[in-house]
Formats: sequence, structure tokens, C-alpha cells
Amino acid sequence: MKEIYLDNAATTPVLPQVVEAIIDCLKNDYGNPSSMHRLGIQAEKRVREAKGRLSSLLRCTEDEIIFTSGGTEANNMAVLGTAYDKKRRGRHCITTEIEHPSVLQAFAHLEEQGYEVSYLPVDQNGVISLDHLKSLIRPDTILVSIMHVNNETGSIQPIRQIGAMLKAGPGKPVFHVDAIQSLGKLPVYPAQWGIDLLSASGHKIHAPKGIGALYIRRGVRIQPILFGGNQQGGIRSGTENIPGIVGMGEGAKWMAERLAEEGGCLAQLKSRLLQGILQAFPDAVINGSADACASHIINVGFPGLRGEILLHALEEEGVYVSTGSACSSRDKRFSHVLKAMGLNDRILEGSIRLSTSYLTTMQDIEEFLPRLTRTVQRIERFTRR
Amino acid sequence: MKEIYLDNAATTPVLPQVVEAIIDCLKNDYGNPSSMHRLGIQAEKRVREAKGRLSSLLRCTEDEIIFTSGGTEANNMAVLGTAYDKKRRGRHCITTEIEHPSVLQAFAHLEEQGYEVSYLPVDQNGVISLDHLKSLIRPDTILVSIMHVNNETGSIQPIRQIGAMLKAGPGKPVFHVDAIQSLGKLPVYPAQWGIDLLSASGHKIHAPKGIGALYIRRGVRIQPILFGGNQQGGIRSGTENIPGIVGMGEGAKWMAERLAEEGGCLAQLKSRLLQGILQAFPDAVINGSADACASHIINVGFPGLRGEILLHALEEEGVYVSTGSACSSRDKRFSHVLKAMGLNDRILEGSIRLSTSYLTTMQDIEEFLPRLTRTVQRIERFTRR
Repeated sequence: MKEIYLDNAATTPVLPQVVEAIIDCLKNDYGNPSSMHRLGIQAEKRVREAKGRLSSLLRCTEDEIIFTSGGTEANNMAVLGTAYDKKRRGRHCITTEIEHPSVLQAFAHLEEQGYEVSYLPVDQNGVISLDHLKSLIRPDTILVSIMHVNNETGSIQPIRQIGAMLKAGPGKPVFHVDAIQSLGKLPVYPAQWGIDLLSASGHKIHAPKGIGALYIRRGVRIQPILFGGNQQGGIRSGTENIPGIVGMGEGAKWMAERLAEEGGCLAQLKSRLLQGILQAFPDAVINGSADACASHIINVGFPGLRGEILLHALEEEGVYVSTGSACSSRDKRFSHVLKAMGLNDRILEGSIRLSTSYLTTMQDIEEFLPRLTRTVQRIERFTRR
Repeated sequence: MKEIYLDNAATTPVLPQVVEAIIDCLKNDYGNPSSMHRLGIQAEKRVREAKGRLSSLLRCTEDEIIFTSGGTEANNMAVLGTAYDKKRRGRHCITTEIEHPSVLQAFAHLEEQGYEVSYLPVDQNGVISLDHLKSLIRPDTILVSIMHVNNETGSIQPIRQIGAMLKAGPGKPVFHVDAIQSLGKLPVYPAQWGIDLLSASGHKIHAPKGIGALYIRRGVRIQPILFGGNQQGGIRSGTENIPGIVGMGEGAKWMAERLAEEGGCLAQLKSRLLQGILQAFPDAVINGSADACASHIINVGFPGLRGEILLHALEEEGVYVSTGSACSSRDKRFSHVLKAMGLNDRILEGSIRLSTSYLTTMQDIEEFLPRLTRTVQRIERFTRR
């Protein structure tokens, strides 16, 4: 039975050309970029090439890219690094209730240190209100951190409008965007959109785990959160993860090509998924409106079922899905995102996340739908006994 | 001309079996270890296997290993994480003047926050005094951080005796050892030696860059420095770098075998190197005594030469060496390590570091020595003109 991987929001398969680039790098370019000899220079060149590819995707300049160990470190650097740098100007920050734990927990850490954090609520579609955000901004607001696409529901925040509003308003707090789920799937251009800091993760764009990046707009200052040999201009100490960086560069290049050429393909997959699911299960609930959500993430609730049981039953059918965010430890309780959207417990409990990538085919979806139907019926039979 | 790589203290070539393991992992085990389905479980199993290999090398238990993004993060976690956790008990820390920047800069960051740090001096061989250390310990001393093998000179600190002394004394400060340069080359067994925290780096043991580990003795508590999804028991949030972890496991396995079987081979290389250099250049100065230093690092000064010029001239002969630590940005001035050993500027300026690995052969050394002689003579001719 062909395996169908619909958990791309948790992590994506590594592309063959990414694997090839990493192999070449591991075998031939093992130098330390801080070394003064040829092997060092060559390793440094690899870093610059990857920066070029990522900056093409983001339409920014190479020197605005800093590599990190992943999305978590990028988000921590943005939130903590800004707060520590601007603490004399103010200690108020704004974020949303539905951010990734690597943003929420960084803010919780700031609260322990006396910072004040306002958490924007979201509507039933998982979207914040621009007016509400505007009303929260104060003279001592130093940072606004809002994710682009939510990892559990795919809900999209109006980043471009927020950027314009912040840049036009008083105080001009630093604007950080967690673009980990949107990068390469939706356009996001920090330089044009008024974004000061933007987080990215390699393993969400078909590169390996353990590598991420932070876009830092030229002129925006943050404090480092790791200290040492002052690599990457002193912003991020530690010998650069060359194979990871090379892999992320390849992934970014491929995503940029797909984004330009196949923008509609993810939307077609989604449309067929939604239609097929709602046809087979008229009482299924799509968490977040189709319009307000990105094409590659669908969060769907089956009232009366338990998401975890459905996940494991689908696994027996060779289908991989998620109950929510996989980017946190497994022992979590109900999703804070779905709760913030006001869903009742019955839907919360029965929700799964289906997430596609440019590697997902319409054939995958056509094969998935009957397996889903079969699986849900099997569980219902079992539950009724 | 065969290239001779004598810069293994900066970074080591990645072993073919490490490359193979990483390829297999990138192609087949791309799951997110936090996912509940089979792909997640498989990825988690890979992490456990690697922990097993590293714990064999260290003679500790698997659950005492936490993976980090490298040596810098491991050192930062140990120093900052301990200081933040113990701040109510005391704010005094002890370290040495010759630590790696990722330790020294972490302490500098603590000093900015009101911690007090005592810096132990070293003798002309680069070794601290146990009595001096003992005299610095106070009731409010919470942390002692001392590296095992120095990255610039190879000088070895009496870690075992320090551990015994700290465990026998009052207060029992947390004992952190940066073992990044010694791991797999010298025995270091934290559980038996009274070490509470021990840092390791993948790319110093023939695994890739971007991966490291921190040994945390069972029962020792530190605060995390990255916040998010509570991976790795909440100590280190962020999706695990599976290919890096797998690579580090393979590297650790190989180093453990070499350490057991070839303990003497690095010493033989060193002995021949020293003999050959001092025969050709009677006025060359070995920085740090041969007895007090590890076999894989030789720091040698050529009075009247400039290390950087020698480095580049050797490069033209296909030989890669370093002027000091490559694990920091290139714009550094004189080595803080050699300065702490009391060397005069003339020696400081003319010093290079030669560092070997288990991949270095006696043939490499025999080919290196005439190239060194030729190179120094060439520079001297040039300088005299």
C-alpha cells in the first residue's frame, strides 16, 4: 500500500537535490568558515550562496539573513533579542493567543522578568482584528510578534496591513513575523511589507532539521542570545552548520521556483480534500474558514471521534496525519489554537490536521479520501460495540 | 601534491560512515520525533540510538545526554542555565582565563547581570593550580567551569582531581567541563570523575557541524535557555536535528573504538612532529610543555615570523594549519590563551597550531616536515630582502 504523507506542517521530506548538496558538502567542504585557509574560505562561500538563495525567496539582501539552529531559536532570538535590546525604551510587547510555543514560551520568559505582554485574541476563523491590535499599541510598546500562517489551522494573519499600520503609526515597535509555515507557500516579502524580523525553518521547506534562519532588516538591532566566537557578525555565535545551511539554501531555491510556477496547485489539492471530506462526512467541521486559511493546512473536526484514535487508525492505512502541532512535546492537552478560536471540546477532541506540500499529488488525495472514509467507519463501528 | 590537514582542532573531516548514516536518515527517516505516528517514533528511535553511542563513550546513561546545536550552545546552556537556576543560592562562579569564547562570553553576560566571576590564571604550561582553585571557593560559589583540553595549546587541566576536590568540599558547586577538544581523544568519564555538566561538539569528532551535546548528571538541574515545545524533557526546545544527531552518534562510536585501540597513535605523531620541528628549527618554542598537553594539539612559536604569513605560505604547500582558535571570528587579536601563559609578543605573533586526528598518518607527518622547513626558509628569505 502506497504511503500518503499528509503531515507536512510537522516536517517535510528532504528533497533529493538537497540530499545531494549535503553529501557534496559533507564530503568536500568540511572546513570551518572561521579558518583563514582555503577550506575555511570555501565553507564561507557556501554560507554566502545559501544566503543568496534565501534572500531571493524573501526578496531581501544577503546580509539580512542570519542562520540559526531552527525555527525555535529564530523565534527566541527575535522575541528575546528585541526585548533585551529595547528594554530601556519600553517593556510592553504584543503577540497573539495562537502563536507557536517557541514564541509564546519566549514571551512567558519575558513576563517572568517584568515585561508586560498583551495577547491578541482571534475570531472563529483564527484571525486577529487590526483595530484591536491598533488599540493595544502604547508608547512603551517595543515589539509586535504575529505569525503569518498558523501551524495548526493554516489561518492567515493580515501581515502586510499590520506592517503598513505599524510603520505609519507612532513609536514604530519592531515587527516580528513567524513565517515558518508560510515560507515558500505564500508570498512574504519582509522588505516591502514592513517586517523587521522574520523566522524561517529548514525542515518545513524540504531541507533537514536543525537549521533555520532569521531575517533581520538592515538597521534593526537585537541582542544575541548565544555568546561566543562572534560568528555571523556577532549576532549568532557558534560554528555555522554548513551542511544544514547548504540544504536550506537548496530548499529555498526549490520553494521559490514552485511558488512562482505552481501557486495554484496547493489550492486545488485543498479544494478536492474539502469537497471529498464534506461529501463523505456532512457533519465534519472545518476549523477556520477556507478563505482565511492557507492552502496547505486543513484542520478538520469529526464530532464524536477522538483525533488520536483517528490518527493511529489512519496510520494502519498508510496515512500520516497529525492531531495538531507536532512541534511540541507529545503530552500536550487540547490545542491552545483551537481553544482560542472558541471551538467546543467535542470538536477539539475530534480534530486532525491534514497538511500537504508541493510533493503531494492529486493522486495522493484521491487515494486518501476512500481510506479516510473506511477508517472513520471502522472506528465508528468499533466505538458503537 | 597531497593535501595535509593539520587543523583538526578547528574541525574534522566527516567520516564516510557518518556520511552514509546521514544520507540514510535524510532519505528514510524524515519524520518529526514529536509526531505520534510511525515516522515520528522512528525518528525518536534514531535519537535514542545516538544517545546510547554517546553515553557509551562517556560511560554515562542515555537520559543524561541532551543534544544541542553545537559546542557553543552546550557551553552557554551549562554556564547560563546553571547560573539562572542557582541564583538564589549564590552568584559567584569560577572559571579560567583560557576558556573558549563560548564559556568566557557567557560569563561576561552573567557579569552584566550582577554575577561575580573569578578567573583562574594558568602557569607557563597553561595549567591551573588546584590550591588556587580551592582558595577561590566560597559559600556562594554555585558553578566551577573548567575546560579539559585547551583548543589552542592542548594543555590539560586536572579534571579528575578537581572533581574529587569539589565533591569532597563544602557547598558542592556545580562542576562544568568543556570537553569539546578532549572527547574521544582522552578518557573523560563524568559519572566517575565528579563532573556534573560536560559539553561536546559533533564536528570535532568527525560528525557534521551544527550538532553538539551536553551531559547533565542525573539530579543536576539547569534552566533552559531556549523556550518552546519542550522537546528533550523541556531542557532544550526545538525539533531535534535528527541527521546531525545520527551523525554525532556514529562519530562517537568510532571515537570510542579508536580511543580503546589506538590511544598511543596520536602520541607517536606528536613525538615525531616535535622532534622534526625542533631539529629543523632549534629556536622554535613549544607553547605549553609536552607533558602537560594533549597529543593531538601542538602550539609552536617561530620567533621573528608572523603566524598568519606562515599559515598562508603553508597553504601554498597544501598544508592546512591555524594561527590559534578557528572557533571565533577571524578578526581577533593576540590569543588570550597564549597571553595568559605569559608568552611575549614575539612568540605570540609567530605561533601556529598543528592539530591531528585519528585520520592523520605518520606519512602525513613525514611529508609535512620538509614542507614546513621549505616554507619557513622561503619566508625568511623573503623577509630579509
